[in-house]
Amino acid sequence: MQRYFISADNWISDQQINIDGDDFHHITRVMRMSVGDDVICNHPNGSAAECVIVDVKNDYLVLSVKAWLNQSVELPVHVTIAQGLPKGDKIDLVLQKGTELGAARFILFQASRSVVKWDEKKALKKQDRFNKIVKEASEQSHRNKVPEVEGVSSFQLLLEKSETYNVKLFAYEEEAKSASFTRLSSIFNEITADMSVLVCIGPEGGFSPDEVNLLKAAGFSSVRLGPRILRTETASLYFLSSISYHFEELR
Amino acid sequence: MQRYFISADNWISDQQINIDGDDFHHITRVMRMSVGDDVICNHPNGSAAECVIVDVKNDYLVLSVKAWLNQSVELPVHVTIAQGLPKGDKIDLVLQKGTELGAARFILFQASRSVVKWDEKKALKKQDRFNKIVKEASEQSHRNKVPEVEGVSSFQLLLEKSETYNVKLFAYEEEAKSASFTRLSSIFNEITADMSVLVCIGPEGGFSPDEVNLLKAAGFSSVRLGPRILRTETASLYFLSSISYHFEELR
Repeated sequence: MQRYFISADNWISDQQINIDGDDFHHITRVMRMSVGDDVICNHPNGSAAECVIVDVKNDYLVLSVKAWLNQSVELPVHVTIAQGLPKGDKIDLVLQKGTELGAARFILFQASRSVVKWDEKKALKKQDRFNKIVKEASEQSHRNKVPEVEGVSSFQLLLEKSETYNVKLFAYEEEAKSASFTRLSSIFNEITADMSVLVCIGPEGGFSPDEVNLLKAAGFSSVRLGPRILRTETASLYFLSSISYHFEELR
Repeated sequence: MQRYFISADNWISDQQINIDGDDFHHITRVMRMSVGDDVICNHPNGSAAECVIVDVKNDYLVLSVKAWLNQSVELPVHVTIAQGLPKGDKIDLVLQKGTELGAARFILFQASRSVVKWDEKKALKKQDRFNKIVKEASEQSHRNKVPEVEGVSSFQLLLEKSETYNVKLFAYEEEAKSASFTRLSSIFNEITADMSVLVCIGPEGGFSPDEVNLLKAAGFSSVRLGPRILRTETASLYFLSSISYHFEELR
């Protein structure tokens, strides 16, 4: 059944939801649904309900809740991916695949080796596109929540933001090359449900030595993501898949 | 140090390697290297050596082996990804990321729900491009071996090919939705080093009921890849990351 994330304003009551805008268009034009058809509506708080269309107005739909659903497919751990700005449209891949794989939040940051430089204007322009990518990926993957995408931070601001996290990690290529590396599992074994985990990933070329020193001084631990050298846009996918495996598939 | 996979013919002796073609161009023009510069040369058998350029000819380089390297970053398990042909250029993503994440072989197959249909001519035309993608991704990720990419198989041929594998799996969306699913770890726990594992992934829309029945009859087990529904091009990345985590990072 098709899923839609409906903003809190459109939840009129416990029983009624109105859908307008892009979702209205998608349901009536793309899916060609009408009165009597069912969809799943997700509330921003994570709850979801099976709903039936009861009325089609000019520019919105009225839906009635048939049943509240209580399954959740959210990762038991709250993972934030902090991605150093990569080249081209690789950030789209990180957001889309990271959402499918369960990330709770994304922070983009301007790393010293980021080839692209985004000013506030460019970042604002991209924000709508990013929000759309994570919303669609959440619907597709049957997520209960849409991840947040925070606009571009400076490295300094990223360090400040990191203070609220329980676990602070960074992917470090030298860790993959080292014989005395820290196993990812030894880090995951220290994490318990509902903890917040921040993992920072450098852009192409990785972190600069200065950044590595600042991360370490701020209490970040370096991790290796298997022994092979991953491209920047692949690192978060390995991390999220592994943490999902550890907490959702391993017994 | 830059890495190149050099075909067996170009290993003149235990001490001498000649490099021509694209790699000659890359080393002399793109990297602007010359006599005295070092590169790592990988032999198709998985061995690798640090080499120095000793002579630059018109259309090839002569290198001398300085030291054999004995590190290996190959996955301890031999994983083949059989990917039902997806739309657009998603197959490029599967090949590139799958190589970074350690796949040993890729088989592409024409699934009943594959929207694109490739005839032999189209498949042949794409083969060069696929070989280039996996070679470059292997060099980038410091692999010891370049994965094989087998041209497009029919579903029937895929079933025949599967007979040589120790472990046969298929990703099944219904498994993710089921309350009584088989945990991926219970499958990984039965796998030991050097076993060959084949995992089949359907195209957009998944496997048809007929295909599911044929897979089961041929001894394939269905697996879930976490509780979220992944796009076809994300499934293999989850599988490879998890199996890497299980065998390379978990203790």
